[in-house]
Amino acid sequence: MVRPIVSVVGAGENATAAGLANAFRLGQLLAADGWIIVSGGRDAGIMREVNRGAKSIQGGLTVGILPSASSAVAPDVDVPIITDIGQARNNIIVLTSRVVIACGAGGAGTASELALAIKAGKPLILLAADEASQSFFKRLGSDRVQIADSPEAAVTLARQFQIE
Amino acid sequence: MVRPIVSVVGAGENATAAGLANAFRLGQLLAADGWIIVSGGRDAGIMREVNRGAKSIQGGLTVGILPSASSAVAPDVDVPIITDIGQARNNIIVLTSRVVIACGAGGAGTASELALAIKAGKPLILLAADEASQSFFKRLGSDRVQIADSPEAAVTLARQFQIE
Amino acid sequence: MVRPIVSVVGAGENATAAGLANAFRLGQLLAADGWIIVSGGRDAGIMREVNRGAKSIQGGLTVGILPSASSAVAPDVDVPIITDIGQARNNIIVLTSRVVIACGAGGAGTASELALAIKAGKPLILLAADEASQSFFKRLGSDRVQIADSPEAAVTLARQFQIE
Amino acid sequence: MVRPIVSVVGAGENATAAGLANAFRLGQLLAADGWIIVSGGRDAGIMREVNRGAKSIQGGLTVGILPSASSAVAPDVDVPIITDIGQARNNIIVLTSRVVIACGAGGAGTASELALAIKAGKPLILLAADEASQSFFKRLGSDRVQIADSPEAAVTLARQFQIE
Repeated sequence: MVRPIVSVVGAGENATAAGLANAFRLGQLLAADGWIIVSGGRDAGIMREVNRGAKSIQGGLTVGILPSASSAVAPDVDVPIITDIGQARNNIIVLTSRVVIACGAGGAGTASELALAIKAGKPLILLAADEASQSFFKRLGSDRVQIADSPEAAVTLARQFQIE
Repeated sequence: MVRPIVSVVGAGENATAAGLANAFRLGQLLAADGWIIVSGGRDAGIMREVNRGAKSIQGGLTVGILPSASSAVAPDVDVPIITDIGQARNNIIVLTSRVVIACGAGGAGTASELALAIKAGKPLILLAADEASQSFFKRLGSDRVQIADSPEAAVTLARQFQIE
Repeated sequence: MVRPIVSVVGAGENATAAGLANAFRLGQLLAADGWIIVSGGRDAGIMREVNRGAKSIQGGLTVGILPSASSAVAPDVDVPIITDIGQARNNIIVLTSRVVIACGAGGAGTASELALAIKAGKPLILLAADEASQSFFKRLGSDRVQIADSPEAAVTLARQFQIE
Repeated sequence: MVRPIVSVVGAGENATAAGLANAFRLGQLLAADGWIIVSGGRDAGIMREVNRGAKSIQGGLTVGILPSASSAVAPDVDVPIITDIGQARNNIIVLTSRVVIACGAGGAGTASELALAIKAGKPLILLAADEASQSFFKRLGSDRVQIADSPEAAVTLARQFQIE
């Protein structure tokens, strides 16, 4: 039986302490729910923590879609995919997933992933996003964009997409 | 002497009449200023009009970066680049340009291009964008993002990036 | 502990019966050796069989790097990565792997993968390739290209790259 | 009227003196025939010379499809397209062209372009290729692959693809 794939996106370099804690918890909860977790794979910020959380759970499986061969890979990535296509890899993260969860506000890279997710018709869950991001992406993606205020709420929302 | 490259991005399918008129005028003014004009190249919306404007000027040169071989190409594109990498081609549009001009609000594809432009450190000019977009991208890109309320103002802002 | 990644490439549409049997056997042996198996992921030819072989082994883990969202995915792919970058995805297959094994002669797509592997400095193992391919790629990649005449020999050759 | 696009591919670093002279002459003849010339765009080998040849002709128009923003651009490229997708850009060179001309033997990068051209169903002209390459690609692409022994012969062969 094929396990469903979720991606978690968020800041590499400027994540907050709360965002990092949320990412770790997201990783744990999603792995416990049987999701394969896809991320940008770098050894930084939200990417590092969501992978660490996922691998703290028995059976957690993590895939990193890396921008280049020279990117440092997060230690808890099981399958590092080396794209060498830079930020264009953001579209692969999105297309590979049934649902995309944004953890925190993120920067420009994260914003591009959320926009690409909407463009691709993927459901999007914004966890602890600031109000400006919420209203911007809600307007762009209308009812495909959902808001969560805790990792638990995000994972509950994700569950509706777990079975195709 | 190498001519500088600018890109113009905006809605394919849901452009407003005002947006389309702005795109045509942008194409004319940028071509008259000597810019090579890069766009997504499809025969739709802002892309079609900016190319049409540019080619109404003697010496206008237009490049379209197309998502796939099956995309209909805007008739006024001189050089259609067939990427076959889908929305990942948005990053190529951005990286190829000295400055990116967004014409109107645009949808999710346009938003991904603006986010990728900021990620790549490219200057961004928002022409006739709605307030939500302005504040979202201003916050994301701070002083690299400038606001214009007419094609003439946008082209004047672009001029500062014409000579490297 | 991170498991090493190998890719197996070969014909989708015109594989021979011997090639398909070799692919199945390769999948079994590589999975038994602990490799994660990467392929083009489509439900055709060498791709389908190597994944089927790998999943016939307890603990086999398979990743498919698909050209587009509309590609039919081989049923034994655990992690389908949807790139939507067409044949450009061949470079991702290669870069993601420590060593590339070509199963049979393959067509133009396979040839592009072997050339890209040599370009990227990856070791290459040609299993049951025709003489023209052997001499062409040997000349191109010199001592990074090795020849095998059975799945067992290919897997033995691959072992030298299993520990970095 | 849209000008047709041809690409010229070949060695960056290890081109022979004869190959470089052929590339310069190809650039001149193709530009004189009205082709837009696409290449890998780097300031090296066949790429540099074909662009130099093309720009020695009044009205020559040259496009370079560069692997990354850090690649040195050949001085005679009019339109440098910055892909940042590394060797995956080889597929864009091929897809953008009506016909692909290989100038000399080339290395692994060139071989990947020729294989991708055949995969994409593009006509291929091999100028002054070694016998091993000729027979390898002839077998792969059958009657879409043609052989030329001078720039003049290559350009004459290309003419049949100039009008769609």
